[in-house]
Amino acid sequence: MVDFTLIASDGGARAGEMVTPHGVIPTPVFMPVGSQATVKTLTPEEVRESGFHLILANTYHLYLRQGVEVIEQFGGLHRFMNWDGALLTDSGGYQIFSLAPLCKIDDEGVWFRSHIDGSEHYFTPELAVACQEKLGADIIMVLDECSACGDPEKKVAAAMERTHRWAERCLAAQRRSDLTLFAIVQGGLFPKLRRQSASFLAGLDFPGYAIGGLSVGEPKEVTFAMLEEVTPRLPDNSPRYLMGVGSPEDLVEGVRRGVDMFDCVLPTRVARNGALFTSSGRINIRKASYRTVDAPIDAACDCYTCRHFSTAYLNHLFKAEELLGLRLATIHNLRFLHNLMKRMRESIIAGKFESFNAEFREAYHPTDEVTRVEQKQRWLDARNSSGG
Amino acid sequence: MVDFTLIASDGGARAGEMVTPHGVIPTPVFMPVGSQATVKTLTPEEVRESGFHLILANTYHLYLRQGVEVIEQFGGLHRFMNWDGALLTDSGGYQIFSLAPLCKIDDEGVWFRSHIDGSEHYFTPELAVACQEKLGADIIMVLDECSACGDPEKKVAAAMERTHRWAERCLAAQRRSDLTLFAIVQGGLFPKLRRQSASFLAGLDFPGYAIGGLSVGEPKEVTFAMLEEVTPRLPDNSPRYLMGVGSPEDLVEGVRRGVDMFDCVLPTRVARNGALFTSSGRINIRKASYRTVDAPIDAACDCYTCRHFSTAYLNHLFKAEELLGLRLATIHNLRFLHNLMKRMRESIIAGKFESFNAEFREAYHPTDEVTRVEQKQRWLDARNSSGG
Repeated sequence: MVDFTLIASDGGARAGEMVTPHGVIPTPVFMPVGSQATVKTLTPEEVRESGFHLILANTYHLYLRQGVEVIEQFGGLHRFMNWDGALLTDSGGYQIFSLAPLCKIDDEGVWFRSHIDGSEHYFTPELAVACQEKLGADIIMVLDECSACGDPEKKVAAAMERTHRWAERCLAAQRRSDLTLFAIVQGGLFPKLRRQSASFLAGLDFPGYAIGGLSVGEPKEVTFAMLEEVTPRLPDNSPRYLMGVGSPEDLVEGVRRGVDMFDCVLPTRVARNGALFTSSGRINIRKASYRTVDAPIDAACDCYTCRHFSTAYLNHLFKAEELLGLRLATIHNLRFLHNLMKRMRESIIAGKFESFNAEFREAYHPTDEVTRVEQKQRWLDARNSSGG
Repeated sequence: MVDFTLIASDGGARAGEMVTPHGVIPTPVFMPVGSQATVKTLTPEEVRESGFHLILANTYHLYLRQGVEVIEQFGGLHRFMNWDGALLTDSGGYQIFSLAPLCKIDDEGVWFRSHIDGSEHYFTPELAVACQEKLGADIIMVLDECSACGDPEKKVAAAMERTHRWAERCLAAQRRSDLTLFAIVQGGLFPKLRRQSASFLAGLDFPGYAIGGLSVGEPKEVTFAMLEEVTPRLPDNSPRYLMGVGSPEDLVEGVRRGVDMFDCVLPTRVARNGALFTSSGRINIRKASYRTVDAPIDAACDCYTCRHFSTAYLNHLFKAEELLGLRLATIHNLRFLHNLMKRMRESIIAGKFESFNAEFREAYHPTDEVTRVEQKQRWLDARNSSGG
């Protein structure tokens, strides 16, 4: 079982600790995504060296390829992928509704086609739990029905109610008490439904609560407005997990609103596209002006990439389409997020989260591509103004 | 300067030691290829941990991208790519004749077009040396004219004679005495020309000799017959380097005929295609029967991959097209070659090379010829299209 302790709060922001069968996880925490039993491009050692001890894998992907039975033969996912840290598996709900051509859903379960070979499959809440118990992650998720951004209220309400019924069935289907089952709050972009979903699921006394169906295309103000409806209705002593959020600026906003856990493919996916996080914002490593820069991507970063390679070398690897570039960029972005979460946690414990937030907003520019010189200057200014 | 000492011979096979400015290299040695200043998919640490202390980079690629002047600003290739071991740069001759659409060659030099953007460039023996001196590898190569497999004797002889004149000009163009310049023996598939080229270049007293223009599509018997014409005519106290050879079975045959150094993209390229070397031969990791195998790829292998992951996991990564699979396969194949070279060296020193050879031929089955055929075809296609 996963045991969560709330250590400190500062405004809405929370710092805590999750004791799992595979290690202690300080929160707030970002979880790198390893859908197919690998955090793309990295070895388990590199993930760990980047500071992560809890990662996510996807039941949908592993069910289709290599098959949960094969992984069960290996004693579960930890041994199959050689990861001795903690694991969380998503139930497959989101992937069925976003990746797979959907065949038919009713109260009993959902028919879908594999996005790989078109083969037909049937998932139920009970099967989602059974598959996850074979994979054996520390934290497992209920099967939920995800609405699409733009669905009418009636449709979203029906999906939410089915998600609630499925949550109860997942609870009843649990066989392994060593795995911790989280509920998933749904309700789309309707404040009333979000409140209703949070309250209903809180009443079922789950050991943890995810917030699903957000960050799926809606404006960010709406994401955070929905979050504000949900978190106050969840129990203080359980972890809250916002699914699918992972940009630096959104992680800060999520933590401000009381979220403890996040996952997202964004940091690793954009890394493979050459978009790197730095203290002053996101940069595109392919830019011609980086061709000769004999300095790390971010002077403030302690990642393997920044300690060993120049911006010019990274620029070269990306232009030459060398796979090492994808690795080095992934390592950098993940370490950046690790350090960001760590700084947030420290500021919450010190009761200085809002001044951290103000500094971060001043320094970090999520959209505009700044020049290298400007970037360095901004970083120095940020250092000076923070008195560091 | 690179200093070569012959330690032991056993039949034709030789064991030696090369002292370079960046470390001592036991021979016979296989050099992993890092054309674009990176051994594809690996960090410098991983290359070193696989047992390699001498790798190859390509002047042609680095001249076109990131530019030798940029790398010179970094103090050379070692620092640019963060590799503190020894380096050898190819002159660009082979790449100009195999990759680039050729414009015009005469005694002065060669016009070619970049295979990347079609831009026009002019290379001379002097420029090839100057570029390599900016890159600063421990061993650099003369500019040579490569013949195509199937060229008539007259054409091959003319290319060989130009290669000889260019070798003399490269010697004269050298400015840095800390870098060691190797000659390249040419002469196509004509024994008389091969003898002539070896004798001529040996007379110029180079510190090392490469054998170029072999393993380019001709039958293996021909490759090794040519080699037997060349090695006896090269001085005993200089290293001999067979370019473009790297399959386990060919390395053994090369060593038997007195070769000290090898390079080839084959081990890393076929690794990325899922072809893995094992004690009993080459396997295709994608094969369905590997789906559930709970054992390393090769029980006799001490590589990172075999120590940490099962055959089933590798099979999964390749089927799921995960980049980690390419890395783990590359690490395995390189370590396999490192161990093979080490075993050959030990058997030479012990005076037991022929019994090693017999054992190896008994155990190792170079099956899975598909990739090799494909590779040859690709090369032939490139040659044909650049000729047309």
